[in-house]
Amino acid sequence: MLTGPFEDVEVGAEVSTRGVTVTETHVVQFSGLTGDQAWLHVDAAAAEAGPFGARVAHGLLLLSMCGGLMYEHSSEWALANYGYDRVRFTAPVFLGDTVHLGVSCSAKERETADNGVVCLALDLRNQRDEPVLVAQQRVLVAKRGTDR
Amino acid sequence: MLTGPFEDVEVGAEVSTRGVTVTETHVVQFSGLTGDQAWLHVDAAAAEAGPFGARVAHGLLLLSMCGGLMYEHSSEWALANYGYDRVRFTAPVFLGDTVHLGVSCSAKERETADNGVVCLALDLRNQRDEPVLVAQQRVLVAKRGTDR
Amino acid sequence: MLTGPFEDVEVGAEVSTRGVTVTETHVVQFSGLTGDQAWLHVDAAAAEAGPFGARVAHGLLLLSMCGGLMYEHSSEWALANYGYDRVRFTAPVFLGDTVHLGVSCSAKERETADNGVVCLALDLRNQRDEPVLVAQQRVLVAKRGTDR
Amino acid sequence: MLTGPFEDVEVGAEVSTRGVTVTETHVVQFSGLTGDQAWLHVDAAAAEAGPFGARVAHGLLLLSMCGGLMYEHSSEWALANYGYDRVRFTAPVFLGDTVHLGVSCSAKERETADNGVVCLALDLRNQRDEPVLVAQQRVLVAKRGTDR
Amino acid sequence: MLTGPFEDVEVGAEVSTRGVTVTETHVVQFSGLTGDQAWLHVDAAAAEAGPFGARVAHGLLLLSMCGGLMYEHSSEWALANYGYDRVRFTAPVFLGDTVHLGVSCSAKERETADNGVVCLALDLRNQRDEPVLVAQQRVLVAKRGTDR
Amino acid sequence: MLTGPFEDVEVGAEVSTRGVTVTETHVVQFSGLTGDQAWLHVDAAAAEAGPFGARVAHGLLLLSMCGGLMYEHSSEWALANYGYDRVRFTAPVFLGDTVHLGVSCSAKERETADNGVVCLALDLRNQRDEPVLVAQQRVLVAKRGTDR
Repeated sequence: MLTGPFEDVEVGAEVSTRGVTVTETHVVQFSGLTGDQAWLHVDAAAAEAGPFGARVAHGLLLLSMCGGLMYEHSSEWALANYGYDRVRFTAPVFLGDTVHLGVSCSAKERETADNGVVCLALDLRNQRDEPVLVAQQRVLVAKRGTDR
Repeated sequence: MLTGPFEDVEVGAEVSTRGVTVTETHVVQFSGLTGDQAWLHVDAAAAEAGPFGARVAHGLLLLSMCGGLMYEHSSEWALANYGYDRVRFTAPVFLGDTVHLGVSCSAKERETADNGVVCLALDLRNQRDEPVLVAQQRVLVAKRGTDR
Repeated sequence: MLTGPFEDVEVGAEVSTRGVTVTETHVVQFSGLTGDQAWLHVDAAAAEAGPFGARVAHGLLLLSMCGGLMYEHSSEWALANYGYDRVRFTAPVFLGDTVHLGVSCSAKERETADNGVVCLALDLRNQRDEPVLVAQQRVLVAKRGTDR
Repeated sequence: MLTGPFEDVEVGAEVSTRGVTVTETHVVQFSGLTGDQAWLHVDAAAAEAGPFGARVAHGLLLLSMCGGLMYEHSSEWALANYGYDRVRFTAPVFLGDTVHLGVSCSAKERETADNGVVCLALDLRNQRDEPVLVAQQRVLVAKRGTDR
Repeated sequence: MLTGPFEDVEVGAEVSTRGVTVTETHVVQFSGLTGDQAWLHVDAAAAEAGPFGARVAHGLLLLSMCGGLMYEHSSEWALANYGYDRVRFTAPVFLGDTVHLGVSCSAKERETADNGVVCLALDLRNQRDEPVLVAQQRVLVAKRGTDR
Repeated sequence: MLTGPFEDVEVGAEVSTRGVTVTETHVVQFSGLTGDQAWLHVDAAAAEAGPFGARVAHGLLLLSMCGGLMYEHSSEWALANYGYDRVRFTAPVFLGDTVHLGVSCSAKERETADNGVVCLALDLRNQRDEPVLVAQQRVLVAKRGTDR
């Protein structure tokens, strides 16, 4: 399982999240919230003439949505989000595409008396099951009986 | 410089961005946009009793804001955002904190006849100049004279 | 009339509000603001395969829009919104549908020296004049000459 | 339990949700999304001189947040949200208050071969455990073995 | 009056609108929606050291809010918003200030058989009744009996 | 140039900004943020039957977007935005249209020892290069060597 205390997390365990449609609203709000107004995301006319033929979602919006999709599967034993490694944007996501996330435990590291680090492999896919983002995440997870 | 064709990018070049205040509005909108409603971000009462004593910004909101802060310094020669490595959240950012970003070129890689990869070191700091996020970003940048 | 002091409100009086289109933006923002990310509202691929064949608006978004549509017809004599009874969602509202509200006074209750309760029947309809939501609302309304 | 097929839902079962802080951002966005710009919600100067001494959240925002808080506890067996009864706003919620929801099953009704209606009692409370909204909700829930 | 057919509009007629508090949420959303991320509006630390000692609202946000405040007083006979003249920002508006709008008819112009232009003087003031924005607006208004 | 100290600004200098698509999200959010819920902007059914055959953007949204588009070309020497003159909405902008802005310096005025006023002509155009908004803006700009 992925959501218990450190001892119970098993390398190889997997979960698959709900899907969410990446809408024009998401892209416009994300541009505004962050200030990234790059033409590939906000200018439909320029994007139509560009490499993908249409506006695409920001890579960091997709990574952020991974955080939201994982929220419903997050462990109450998680103490902190250490960070991300090897985040790669592997295919464009267009406005109207629907993505869902696969998460698996790839390793357990740095075990101490109280906690340890769980390494997660993130695999975000679109409605055609094509990978659009892969990443590794490291989360600090408490052991059973520790005072969280 | 950081913003010209691949040949002109110099390892060691640096830019510093404007600042932006991370407001309650950013955190509430980011929770909604992504679906990450974790108590540390949305429940002031629970956060007050938690490890930081107050609500803090999502790590992925901070990384997303790096994208927005870099937008105003982005190279027209950039062809694609490859991804991020070793993203680490090094200190909590509270609602009302103001962050600014330092970006430096740490390496140039995988040069071809047409382009190459520029490695950027991101260093996000708060109003007390304390680092709150570090990361590496890889961007594909065109060479002069190539047909972008 | 519906908008004067308690004495002037007539049982049977009616108003019809402006229309408003229920957009993808409304549904995405409402999902975010409330945290209700149910697939019927946010996952276009799943909704296409579901009972309605497309994403539909949250019932509570529609009821909330009744509040907004009534705002422009609200009585300055209203002291408080007591609540709602028998709220029923009678047909799905799809993204892009346009709704308008009919409000009529169904009863006057609990009259005191200073005020009384006005019962309103809400009838929200789409662009084909099909009812999509019915509800009863109770509002406390002051009498003329009372110190509001 | 509250979240299985109709047969497994027990009258008297209860769940308690996470909390969420009702921020100025929620109230401003809700005013905009619905169009309800009543002074009690959007005019701090008028609200300061009004009955509560400060701006308060829209009642329908609170009911909508119940929908969001329940989302994480919603049954996969739920087929439809029938509606709400006896929604009452029992105390003002100020900007910055934190609310959490108690849900209990009050009755099971209209059982057929395939499904039945589950009646839920909603009890929204603030950070001082004072009730601010009560309501009843009716949800259509499938039986085990039915083709949902 | 200000809201009837062209013949009925009287030079010198006045209306006063409701108030609205200009919140941090308005300023952050307006920055995002437009892309204007100037430090005076989004960087609390820089603004504290700046000429006003704190973040201030965008002038164009204030003018836009005039449009919203006038909406509730708009004439059904209005055919088009011609534009604005002599828009002047006369004092800073801080986050948390509450503004209300005075509108008066300053002239009637360009009368034809079907319609005419109504000139409006806008006078936006803060909670201390200090003028923060003045402007003139020209609206095309239909005559009675014309086919709108 | 348009972005240096007052002495360096040349009458006749021009810049052209990036484009931005005016989306349904912009229009819905602007309606909410300002409170202007006029049917021409928010009611697709009524707008279809109206003079333009579809919903159009608010004129003040377009003017506000000019502020955002100019932000990336704003002078660090600008001390204050004095205001706007002769703002005229010359053609409707539909949801999905993409606009870009031309800015030129039309005059320099009121020069003092420390600063002067720069007059800018704004020319917003859609994806067919049709003018949709023209306006004049006055900005106070510092001279070189003054203590800004």
